[in-house]
Amino acid sequence: MKIGKATVPRTAICTSNEHTIAIRGRDLSKDLIGKVSFVEHFYLLLTGRMPSAGEAAVLNATLVAIAEHGLVPSVQAARMTFAAAPDAMQGAVAAGILGCGSVVLGSSETAGRMYSEIDAKVRDGAAVDAAALEVMQSWRAAGRSIPGYGHPQHKERDARVSALFGVARDAGTDLRFVAIAEAAEAAIPRVLGKDLKLNVSGAIPAVLLGAGFPVQALKGVPILARTAGLIAHLFEEIGQPIGFALSYQATREMVYEGELPPGFGAHP
Amino acid sequence: MKIGKATVPRTAICTSNEHTIAIRGRDLSKDLIGKVSFVEHFYLLLTGRMPSAGEAAVLNATLVAIAEHGLVPSVQAARMTFAAAPDAMQGAVAAGILGCGSVVLGSSETAGRMYSEIDAKVRDGAAVDAAALEVMQSWRAAGRSIPGYGHPQHKERDARVSALFGVARDAGTDLRFVAIAEAAEAAIPRVLGKDLKLNVSGAIPAVLLGAGFPVQALKGVPILARTAGLIAHLFEEIGQPIGFALSYQATREMVYEGELPPGFGAHP
Amino acid sequence: MKIGKATVPRTAICTSNEHTIAIRGRDLSKDLIGKVSFVEHFYLLLTGRMPSAGEAAVLNATLVAIAEHGLVPSVQAARMTFAAAPDAMQGAVAAGILGCGSVVLGSSETAGRMYSEIDAKVRDGAAVDAAALEVMQSWRAAGRSIPGYGHPQHKERDARVSALFGVARDAGTDLRFVAIAEAAEAAIPRVLGKDLKLNVSGAIPAVLLGAGFPVQALKGVPILARTAGLIAHLFEEIGQPIGFALSYQATREMVYEGELPPGFGAHP
Amino acid sequence: MKIGKATVPRTAICTSNEHTIAIRGRDLSKDLIGKVSFVEHFYLLLTGRMPSAGEAAVLNATLVAIAEHGLVPSVQAARMTFAAAPDAMQGAVAAGILGCGSVVLGSSETAGRMYSEIDAKVRDGAAVDAAALEVMQSWRAAGRSIPGYGHPQHKERDARVSALFGVARDAGTDLRFVAIAEAAEAAIPRVLGKDLKLNVSGAIPAVLLGAGFPVQALKGVPILARTAGLIAHLFEEIGQPIGFALSYQATREMVYEGELPPGFGAHP
Repeated sequence: MKIGKATVPRTAICTSNEHTIAIRGRDLSKDLIGKVSFVEHFYLLLTGRMPSAGEAAVLNATLVAIAEHGLVPSVQAARMTFAAAPDAMQGAVAAGILGCGSVVLGSSETAGRMYSEIDAKVRDGAAVDAAALEVMQSWRAAGRSIPGYGHPQHKERDARVSALFGVARDAGTDLRFVAIAEAAEAAIPRVLGKDLKLNVSGAIPAVLLGAGFPVQALKGVPILARTAGLIAHLFEEIGQPIGFALSYQATREMVYEGELPPGFGAHP
Repeated sequence: MKIGKATVPRTAICTSNEHTIAIRGRDLSKDLIGKVSFVEHFYLLLTGRMPSAGEAAVLNATLVAIAEHGLVPSVQAARMTFAAAPDAMQGAVAAGILGCGSVVLGSSETAGRMYSEIDAKVRDGAAVDAAALEVMQSWRAAGRSIPGYGHPQHKERDARVSALFGVARDAGTDLRFVAIAEAAEAAIPRVLGKDLKLNVSGAIPAVLLGAGFPVQALKGVPILARTAGLIAHLFEEIGQPIGFALSYQATREMVYEGELPPGFGAHP
Repeated sequence: MKIGKATVPRTAICTSNEHTIAIRGRDLSKDLIGKVSFVEHFYLLLTGRMPSAGEAAVLNATLVAIAEHGLVPSVQAARMTFAAAPDAMQGAVAAGILGCGSVVLGSSETAGRMYSEIDAKVRDGAAVDAAALEVMQSWRAAGRSIPGYGHPQHKERDARVSALFGVARDAGTDLRFVAIAEAAEAAIPRVLGKDLKLNVSGAIPAVLLGAGFPVQALKGVPILARTAGLIAHLFEEIGQPIGFALSYQATREMVYEGELPPGFGAHP
Repeated sequence: MKIGKATVPRTAICTSNEHTIAIRGRDLSKDLIGKVSFVEHFYLLLTGRMPSAGEAAVLNATLVAIAEHGLVPSVQAARMTFAAAPDAMQGAVAAGILGCGSVVLGSSETAGRMYSEIDAKVRDGAAVDAAALEVMQSWRAAGRSIPGYGHPQHKERDARVSALFGVARDAGTDLRFVAIAEAAEAAIPRVLGKDLKLNVSGAIPAVLLGAGFPVQALKGVPILARTAGLIAHLFEEIGQPIGFALSYQATREMVYEGELPPGFGAHP
């Protein structure tokens, strides 16, 4: 069935024949394997160009920052899934990745979109503080939450934020979006009526957008990073299974609020 | 509900409090962000120790080698899924990862298990050629296919194989499993009755097992690598959608072999 | 880690002890197995009450209407995934379900929300035609597309629509939303400037909302229905594998638009 | 890329043109919508023929029996995923389905395969008790676990088993596999050295195989059934979110067994 107008598949990422796999104009076996790191390769696949050393350092730092945070919900979902279906590691990784949604890990992308809106106003001549305030107030007026600030566990500014900003400074990449993220942080009390600090999901686009990373691909960063963490957890699950222990603990205090049939619990 | 005996979740990967995220004994913000690459971090998460430079080089090379091979089935599945559900990039990545199964990308892990069996015999004193032949014949006798050899497109030895072996040699990591993989390649004609060459799914465990990578986590390598390629394809899909064009092309020559109701196709 | 305020899991769907599984106040083994159909059970699980015969007839009809439409993109994704990972049928079903997104099958839910908005205005005293026009124009003004109208293949009103409306009339369920859907169909030319007819994704909420089905669960209908179709396709795939044939066909006319490395294609 | 030999996609399930959707030889809009139940439609999609009333009753009963069992691991995984990604219900359903693996819900299919092996011996003239014992002992000798017997919560024979057997008796479908399942139950103490009773995963194939349901599609039954239960839980999650509460509870007694960096937990 024909859906939409395009009927011929086009791609600019990769083609191959019997002898050569060409990726973004390079010969995979001659030019890339052993010559570039996996993170440089990811940047090349995505953007079509090789990153500078500074850009690669920033991308590495963000992937390291977000790869792992213990037994968070997506890790629990993956370990429970692996306990039930140990033959299919790919299924357990997929279950974990499906938790990279708008509430938990997707805020990197949303924050990047907010910073880009602020940046557009700055490029049009607005002062960064005023631009941040204006954009954030318009987001609130439209009923949208402000992404990138506050954390259930880290009440002060998350230490990962300063570490990422330090990497960006050392790397010499563009710090424009770092300034925007900090202007937005300063405006938070006026916008939300409480003082929330930059979190790692705000810091990631703040440094990545200055490293040439496309805003529409930002969600790929937590997805790729968490995949590494998930694989480590699933390997640990093989040796020390806790998937079912997690689900047992989760419901120990479960309250059933529905009705019960007559004689529930009696021996038949 | 209690399933199994363990009731207390245990992990040795990560814990955190308000000030610090501890990963494998390191302070994430002080010791890891900006200090280690994403691939070193992945190795650390998985094994609990930091890789040597050579081990990291080998792991990087394998991830680069397997990340991308054009519009393969898993990429098609992901792009079709993204075309249908553009709000949920994580769902499209998950759909792609679910294709890392026993037939297509899972053979890295299976080949690693075969090489480990051969290695156990070599450690017990067998010659590598004899050990390879014996293990492969026992796999065939049990009805199992031999993983890591042959490719639908690359009839000669896949160029990625030599590139990976070159990286391992330069890196100075253990080449024991490379020798095993080549002994198995030499035995293929006697075992299968045809001459299949080492493919990239065989080369990956051949170099990774010598770099201290655990055999049970081998499936994580194609999964992590392909996640990078999938994200690149989904970013391209945003700008140049082909998901529905792929599905249109796929069924242009579709043959319907079922029955038809009376009057099928007539205007009602 | 504590995310949000709730810490005690509560549910009203099901609890169990050694002797009894209680579902929505019924004893599963005594009151439900063999006493109710699967579709009645689904309605009970979802709403907490047993549907009337008419409500069950309408829900059955919508599930039948949307379960299967041939080798659509989500079926292709599932069959490709199963070809690559034949050991994990659940992974292939999951890959197919992930294509029930906002563009393809999710429009049932969105159409239901639009009809509910129109209904709220009608309950406040507006005429149905005026209410439909007003809501649709406000959706367009907000940049939202109008769900439930038009189909790439069925240019006239999809025959499934009339069949579903006929079932609702025979079942005696509330036809209020059918009237709303038809009012919206009549308003389409003024709103969109072209004449699109009701499609099955519009007809499903039109009949289901009148059968007591909750608007927020509407997306569950295509998901459950397509799961049945996907399982049939995966069973066919076991006997007659076409997953890889689909992916081969899909790229036969593929155009590579990227650069090529020097000497691409030459024998090394 | 061409993988395998088949290049032309073939299917016998469904085709369509502008006016008609043909499913298994029927006109969807004229012959199926409003004429058959969803469960009959599922049987038709799968097998190509309409079930008898008895066969449909048995399939309904199995789907009702396995649809829901409270906050089991797959439901927890789905609710956690939905809490993190509330925009994508299909992703949360997929995460739940991915837990229909070999350990938890896949045993219906495995038990069906075991019963089919026993049945083959009976058809060759063996007594059912001897055939059951022989097959089960050969499975144990090959290191396979015996599927369909024992339950973590229900120590006596699960009440769902008797209910399903009663439905099959009333339905008049073939009881051959019920007899096989009971012969296997009687042999369990000799095979495993302990007395495990038939569970619902054993009873499902016992009644379904006698109702003409294909053994290779058995895994589809828990998958389809659980999809209904998952949708009910996700609808409840919208109104009463517990996804994060479940993950909070799950780790309250978490033990971190790894190393800690110097000064962990101190205010910086």
